Amino acid sequence: MNFQFNLPTNIVLKTGIVRQVAGFLPLYRISKPLILTDKGINKAGLLQGIIESLTNENIDFAVYDDVQPNPKDKYCGLAADFARVNNVDGIIAVGGGSVLDTAKALGILLTHDGVINDWEGDNTLQRDITPLICIPTTAGTGSEATNIAVITDTERKVKMGIVDDRIAPKLSLLDPELTKGLPASITASTGMDALTHAIEAYTSRSSSPVTDALALHAIRLIKDYFLEAVQNGANMEARENILSASLMAGIAFSQSNVGSVHCISEAAGGLYDAPHGVLNSIFLPYVFEFNMEANLEKHADVAYALGVDQNLPVREASKEGAKLLFEMVEKVGIPKFSDLPAVDPKDFAKLAKTSKETPMDADNVRSLTVEDYLTIIKNAYNSNH
Amino acid sequence: MNFQFNLPTNIVLKTGIVRQVAGFLPLYRISKPLILTDKGINKAGLLQGIIESLTNENIDFAVYDDVQPNPKDKYCGLAADFARVNNVDGIIAVGGGSVLDTAKALGILLTHDGVINDWEGDNTLQRDITPLICIPTTAGTGSEATNIAVITDTERKVKMGIVDDRIAPKLSLLDPELTKGLPASITASTGMDALTHAIEAYTSRSSSPVTDALALHAIRLIKDYFLEAVQNGANMEARENILSASLMAGIAFSQSNVGSVHCISEAAGGLYDAPHGVLNSIFLPYVFEFNMEANLEKHADVAYALGVDQNLPVREASKEGAKLLFEMVEKVGIPKFSDLPAVDPKDFAKLAKTSKETPMDADNVRSLTVEDYLTIIKNAYNSNH
Repeated sequence: MNFQFNLPTNIVLKTGIVRQVAGFLPLYRISKPLILTDKGINKAGLLQGIIESLTNENIDFAVYDDVQPNPKDKYCGLAADFARVNNVDGIIAVGGGSVLDTAKALGILLTHDGVINDWEGDNTLQRDITPLICIPTTAGTGSEATNIAVITDTERKVKMGIVDDRIAPKLSLLDPELTKGLPASITASTGMDALTHAIEAYTSRSSSPVTDALALHAIRLIKDYFLEAVQNGANMEARENILSASLMAGIAFSQSNVGSVHCISEAAGGLYDAPHGVLNSIFLPYVFEFNMEANLEKHADVAYALGVDQNLPVREASKEGAKLLFEMVEKVGIPKFSDLPAVDPKDFAKLAKTSKETPMDADNVRSLTVEDYLTIIKNAYNSNH
Repeated sequence: MNFQFNLPTNIVLKTGIVRQVAGFLPLYRISKPLILTDKGINKAGLLQGIIESLTNENIDFAVYDDVQPNPKDKYCGLAADFARVNNVDGIIAVGGGSVLDTAKALGILLTHDGVINDWEGDNTLQRDITPLICIPTTAGTGSEATNIAVITDTERKVKMGIVDDRIAPKLSLLDPELTKGLPASITASTGMDALTHAIEAYTSRSSSPVTDALALHAIRLIKDYFLEAVQNGANMEARENILSASLMAGIAFSQSNVGSVHCISEAAGGLYDAPHGVLNSIFLPYVFEFNMEANLEKHADVAYALGVDQNLPVREASKEGAKLLFEMVEKVGIPKFSDLPAVDPKDFAKLAKTSKETPMDADNVRSLTVEDYLTIIKNAYNSNH
């Protein structure tokens, strides 16, 4: 056994906490923040409490709401141009994974030369980034508690990972109220994203007792509250617990890495620009089924945490776990891989190769070949399980 | 739901990591550390790897090995005098809870005026303390991951709590090798201390999903590895897992607080100077049994994590959990309360009153009166359960 654990981000979860955001700014020496978000969030009125808090305290700020889903390299540069013109000294990111990851990239661009593509990889940064406060509006990304940003390289059509403790937010404010109005389809795909983080963190080759603890409990909360959150979005107990689960899954995978579900999702996301949560949901059951023989104990633990009978032996429990994941994906209405726009079997060989080249591949519990990836991708396309 | 979670301490667990301690000092701008420890640890040769690491890197240091168990206010002053004369700018604390808590007090005295008693309470400090690296030699205290120091006020004969994020270590190095030579009796009482932290954190009124996750998994690891660590101290897998469990329990209770076991233990520790781990072990089953009706679900979760049949309903499971704790205490050879030196029933009324006045009382899952405390203390004295 051999692990490190550190959490550079302070976390506060409280209903209505965003209406107190101004009070936190002096802690991080922010005098003029940029609120970074997307148009959907702005239109939905989710910035209101934040803006009121800043206005009440006479804090000057700017708003940039042009973040795009699956954030792309060139858009990060546009946000940075806006931030420079507005002379901000901190970032308040309000959104899902795309916004939070863009905020991390923006923080890098405001403190480092070049374009975001220059900073791909692990621990490439030279100094601290602009202080960042994250306010997630979905329960799934976990980006509010990770040192990771994923940005699409538009030329190579691949998703780049940037991993560095210096891009972890200083503070994350988790306000369950912001997730109350999420449509069921987004609650579904982002919740499955959180579940994927938790399962891949728990089964990862780089897992530790600390990440195991957080991942397992996240799975348990998802078992207890996920369907309710999808079916009855106004149930705040369900929203709070899924937000907590997403947070814990984020802390866990930030330290233990994820696995082959993410390899395929990021490869497919780079190629097809499909939502990350949807892609993870699609591939999770297939990869779980394929991986389980490599560590039946851990896959059975996942299954038990998902509600499978504790009296079943590990192989049977793991099989039941896979079955449950297939059912869950169907029940919450995740689209099929073959139904996603632009998906074309002609790309699958390339997709399998890119999946294998994705850095997370090394931490997947089972060693997958390019052929294995191709099998999984084809099975998912043909709903063959 | 409403919680904060932050972990000011970076954690590394690795066999042999203490032999690399010199490499970490520049991160915390330490040029001349004080190694703080006790005579037992020094004589056992546990400083060897640390001293070699410093010597190899030509780092000047001083050693103070006069820390006493249940650290007392006046001894903290002596350590501070020694540190000042030796002109150190950092602390490497090597030991159990007494050493780590003394190190926190020392860090306060080197950066604040007055005596340690002046800084009792929550968030009383005025500035950062001397950078502190903790190296636990027992698996139980959790102090390596907490913002808490407990120091005995010798005049009032009570244990004072000092709680402030600024006394949390910057870094904790967990080296399972250092716990390998621990005698079975110390492995037993410190392991039960960790279990107490985990159970009280999990059942605390201030628990959160994050502390629940860490506490529950700590209990599970203790179930799997504690007896083995006591009975076969050379089993490094057991040692690693118990050290991890102790860490997680520490992180958990640092955020969620502990409860009435600690109220009684600290009251009794202030009066009788008995080992904290032993006192916690003695009172844990009695308080568990007394508390369980206030939250059967959570007490049952503890019981299930300890291996009680998952098919039992919550009340029966909780009862089985209490039974299991009584058996565990006996199996690992914890002395009886009535066998501890100086324990005298004449003190029990005072002990009950002091227990009730201890700040952790407010977070105990069941509201206990002074009478309740007295009942528990008498039951423990008479082995009445």
